Amino acid sequence: MPLFKKVLYPTDFSELAETAKDYALKLREAGAEEVVLLHVISPLEFSLPQFDDPFALDVALLYSHLPEVEREVLKRHQEMLDILAGDFEKAGFNVKKVLTVGTPSDEIVRVAEEEGVNVIVIGYHGKGLMERILEIGSTAKAVIKKAECPVLVVKRR
Amino acid sequence: MPLFKKVLYPTDFSELAETAKDYALKLREAGAEEVVLLHVISPLEFSLPQFDDPFALDVALLYSHLPEVEREVLKRHQEMLDILAGDFEKAGFNVKKVLTVGTPSDEIVRVAEEEGVNVIVIGYHGKGLMERILEIGSTAKAVIKKAECPVLVVKRR
Repeated sequence: MPLFKKVLYPTDFSELAETAKDYALKLREAGAEEVVLLHVISPLEFSLPQFDDPFALDVALLYSHLPEVEREVLKRHQEMLDILAGDFEKAGFNVKKVLTVGTPSDEIVRVAEEEGVNVIVIGYHGKGLMERILEIGSTAKAVIKKAECPVLVVKRR
Repeated sequence: MPLFKKVLYPTDFSELAETAKDYALKLREAGAEEVVLLHVISPLEFSLPQFDDPFALDVALLYSHLPEVEREVLKRHQEMLDILAGDFEKAGFNVKKVLTVGTPSDEIVRVAEEEGVNVIVIGYHGKGLMERILEIGSTAKAVIKKAECPVLVVKRR
């Protein structure tokens, strides 16, 4: 069995995630057949003052409580996931799209285990000053620490 | 060009490195053609009281200053690297063996850059209590942070 049969590619639609995408696609040649495309929505990005625990929401519930302008943001995320799916399908992958609400690293590790993926492909910002201050890249760090499967860490170009 | 044409596989000959080896070998199917097998000798493993900076040594110099019993350890490392090379050659790789003296993470990043590899395959111990106390796994962490190329992080089975 190929070691990389099923791939998890989490994306926040950033430039860095785009770099990681090239590697995820390339795993097709290493025997990868399936890919799970995951986008995690942090409820903290949205205005949800009425919830004690916004992390308990699912996407539909989140959607129903958002003001119109933020619904558009969420719809745009779904569209971007669809476009991404098209790219992976063109490369010959069986594609599953997952959109969840939560803490990105926790959701990535949870979905990796639930889906039984063989590798997670994720971007890593490295050690720039701004990144250290803003703790960008801590999602990748937490995923490396917590995931049970191998993680392909892709650095910023 | 395949994204994983040239692979760096650093090993300390541990069980964890052995797990990572399976993935390094499997990259052959992802288009990998060359592999650099690296073993870094920490001078701190040996008795070298007469050196102010044992990290300034190369392998030959280290060897010449070792007592007989420790020379045997060093020879054994070289033999293990030869055996490893055989496994990778059998899988169809062009193999280069590198044995250096220094701090493992620094040497791994230096060799990765000098050799222009496309990916480093390394084992990661994770978050066991003993590992946290002994700081095992910090080599992988430092490599992920400092390397410019992608790093395939393989967890303990």
